[in-house]
Amino acid sequence: MATLDTLNLNLKDLSFINDIKSMAVVGTSKKRNFFFLRNHAENFKGKLYAVNPVIKEIPGFDKNFIYPSLKDIPGEVDFVFIAVPPSKILEVMDDCVEKGVKLATVFTAEFSDSGKEEGVELEKELLRRAKNKVRMLGPNGLGLYYPKSGIAWRSHFPAKSGNISFIAQSGGICNLVIYGADVLGMNLSKVFSFGNGTDIDLVDIFYFMINDPETNIILCYLEGIKSERGEALRKVFKFNNRNNKKPIIIVRGGQTKTGSIAAKTHTASISGENHIWRAIFKQYNIIEVNSIEQLLATAYLIEYYGLFELNNLAVLSSSGGYGVILTDLIEKAGMNVPPFSPNIQKQITSNFFTLGTSPKNPLDVSAQVFSSKSVYKILDLALADEKIDGLIVDMPSFYFNNDHSYRISFDPSYEDHMIEALTLGHKHHKPLISIIKRIHCPEDRDRLFKKSKERKVPVFEDPIEFISLLPKISQYTRKKKLIEKL
Amino acid sequence: MATLDTLNLNLKDLSFINDIKSMAVVGTSKKRNFFFLRNHAENFKGKLYAVNPVIKEIPGFDKNFIYPSLKDIPGEVDFVFIAVPPSKILEVMDDCVEKGVKLATVFTAEFSDSGKEEGVELEKELLRRAKNKVRMLGPNGLGLYYPKSGIAWRSHFPAKSGNISFIAQSGGICNLVIYGADVLGMNLSKVFSFGNGTDIDLVDIFYFMINDPETNIILCYLEGIKSERGEALRKVFKFNNRNNKKPIIIVRGGQTKTGSIAAKTHTASISGENHIWRAIFKQYNIIEVNSIEQLLATAYLIEYYGLFELNNLAVLSSSGGYGVILTDLIEKAGMNVPPFSPNIQKQITSNFFTLGTSPKNPLDVSAQVFSSKSVYKILDLALADEKIDGLIVDMPSFYFNNDHSYRISFDPSYEDHMIEALTLGHKHHKPLISIIKRIHCPEDRDRLFKKSKERKVPVFEDPIEFISLLPKISQYTRKKKLIEKL
Repeated sequence: MATLDTLNLNLKDLSFINDIKSMAVVGTSKKRNFFFLRNHAENFKGKLYAVNPVIKEIPGFDKNFIYPSLKDIPGEVDFVFIAVPPSKILEVMDDCVEKGVKLATVFTAEFSDSGKEEGVELEKELLRRAKNKVRMLGPNGLGLYYPKSGIAWRSHFPAKSGNISFIAQSGGICNLVIYGADVLGMNLSKVFSFGNGTDIDLVDIFYFMINDPETNIILCYLEGIKSERGEALRKVFKFNNRNNKKPIIIVRGGQTKTGSIAAKTHTASISGENHIWRAIFKQYNIIEVNSIEQLLATAYLIEYYGLFELNNLAVLSSSGGYGVILTDLIEKAGMNVPPFSPNIQKQITSNFFTLGTSPKNPLDVSAQVFSSKSVYKILDLALADEKIDGLIVDMPSFYFNNDHSYRISFDPSYEDHMIEALTLGHKHHKPLISIIKRIHCPEDRDRLFKKSKERKVPVFEDPIEFISLLPKISQYTRKKKLIEKL
Repeated sequence: MATLDTLNLNLKDLSFINDIKSMAVVGTSKKRNFFFLRNHAENFKGKLYAVNPVIKEIPGFDKNFIYPSLKDIPGEVDFVFIAVPPSKILEVMDDCVEKGVKLATVFTAEFSDSGKEEGVELEKELLRRAKNKVRMLGPNGLGLYYPKSGIAWRSHFPAKSGNISFIAQSGGICNLVIYGADVLGMNLSKVFSFGNGTDIDLVDIFYFMINDPETNIILCYLEGIKSERGEALRKVFKFNNRNNKKPIIIVRGGQTKTGSIAAKTHTASISGENHIWRAIFKQYNIIEVNSIEQLLATAYLIEYYGLFELNNLAVLSSSGGYGVILTDLIEKAGMNVPPFSPNIQKQITSNFFTLGTSPKNPLDVSAQVFSSKSVYKILDLALADEKIDGLIVDMPSFYFNNDHSYRISFDPSYEDHMIEALTLGHKHHKPLISIIKRIHCPEDRDRLFKKSKERKVPVFEDPIEFISLLPKISQYTRKKKLIEKL
């Protein structure tokens, strides 16, 4: 098995995280309505303790698990979430060392992030006091979301775990990814908000995730990196790429002058030069996207269909004009909408029976969209064409409204048949991506979206959300295959 | 008043459309469950007749308004919607002429659109039989949606009328625009689906809309134009631009090779060369966008805020990282996110009271987002800055959930206060655009969206939906001002 010189690169071993069994929230307070304690209490599967020197009772929390200090807890404590004022932080870290805590999230801010000399000094001292015994996330970070063990800094963080992981410095953007992934039907393995990155930093987490058996896709919002860690990051990326480990998808903040200044304000790190980052991403086959929405959409497509290479797409729409626009968007993005193979074309044509339709690629089913049976057959044939790598379906939601009053005729099984047709991508092992927008009936769209999610059919609202991502995923897959052949 | 040589350009007078008071659906049939009759019956404000040679009764329709032929109707008939087979069409057109019908939509297809010689001939004959007395939309078109008089070919087409008009050849794309505009809180004046454009064509409709007192914004999906009408279209665009009439926003289908072939299949017209269209659009200050979604979004922004010129934007987000990404997207699109003026910066800073925030542009309110009072003040100050032309607000919907369990504290008036804050764009006459996506709670998002719509606050889900449109609107406005100064 390929390995990396972890010692020389100063890469920390974080593999113990997968076995966290106990935790404490230190500094939980009435002022915040016991926010972090309540949130962790939602789903934490092991023993959860509250630590506060004065509080004896917390509504809804077993008072036998409240202790004045970490040292007073009888059992082991693998993980602590610390939200004490900066003046108390060193003392708490001493207790962590003494108690044998493995991982500490320091939520407390006003260290180097304050921009003040005393904050920088306190942060250095904090690191020293951790004695390389306690691994620390933060300060100024929200630490770890890990649904397998139920570690979650915010309420309603999903309890179900999956294989997608995310890294960012700040917690706010993690919240967006965690809630957003859930909406899209993706389950997360781990999310790290490493804050100032004083002990555990971006490079450590990347290396951990690359080797983590619970992670298949790595997502990251990156604002920059301390210059002394640049070489280590490059080596970690190289290790991932050479050994064909996992897709890494990154959105980078601070690409423009003002963005870069804002990123610096935000996390006190240097965004660096665009061309350097672009060269690194290209060299190590990293997918770069432009927004959090695109980051999620890319993961969504890979999660639902695995890696894919799309060159030739079929298009089906219920409006000829919309099909023309989609074709333009696809071809402008560098993919093709080619004619079907003659035998497939013949069979598809025989399934068209209504005026005003077009059986060629892009397929315009027009009013024939009301026949779920024929739509199913047409999609099945189009995907069976060996020339075709994938399919985009445009399906206005008003055809699905509950009372069917938008339709010419009533057909109670229409909706389920159409959802069935949309799963044909899985039958053919080719991505089928649907666009269900134009919501005259938002409730119907929501219902369809949920049903599609259960069947692992990706649904977008606007082609601009995903068209540009398809060539990026294809290019990644192509390069990955090349490396496999080496 | 400026005029155009309508006679030499063969531009038809369509101004009578605004006074349609009676209509008939010719060829309504049980087979389609009286689809077009039922739909028009929903809202038509004048007298509505059904014409069918054999049918005597139609469920839910006054049988005294059913006639075997147009000629049998006692009163006047301004408008007819014709859905008879091609074999009957000439006879019906003769009746229209005899009856003094002003406008006829011919929904019937299989004319030149069939690609067959007999269809081409029948279409020519149909035009001759209209005798330049009956103005015709179609054949192969859905004709007219005109909420003021209640003309509507589809069910649930909104009854409320506004000042945005749309032109397209085919009806399918009109449906998307009509339902979609409604979702975005935009009311339409008129929509034309002119089909084969045998009599009334694209140029006639553009000229009509430019002069129509009920139309302020003109939208169009354009697949091409018959070469002999190119010069007329150019002159109509020139007339609009020189006289500073109305913004025209166009999405053009058939820009790529396959798209162009598909457009030809779809409407039998020539898409033409991209560079020619681009030159025309540039010369006559026409806003070109890339999708129906962008067409609607552009109209949405102009409808809510009027024309605007955005160079310097303020950004407010509840996640520092998201603010950095937004800033990058804005600056990459050619706009700026500049520092606030010193006096405004001072006042804004004094309104920040929470750690982990940033009072500079882009504003990162972080957890302070929970204080609607301070968010209101900050937005008000940012918009008061004379350096700032507009503002983008990122507002994750999970802060608004009904039971407030995502929040640290309960605040029943939070939602209404925040919506109030989002209306500050109107107070300052500067666009405030909000992004409310990341829907852990789709119901909450829907509720917020509706409340924002009532207050004319545009809400998007993803910055990619609108960022690229802002410079297009700004450029249009800038050029328009230049012409005004001439």
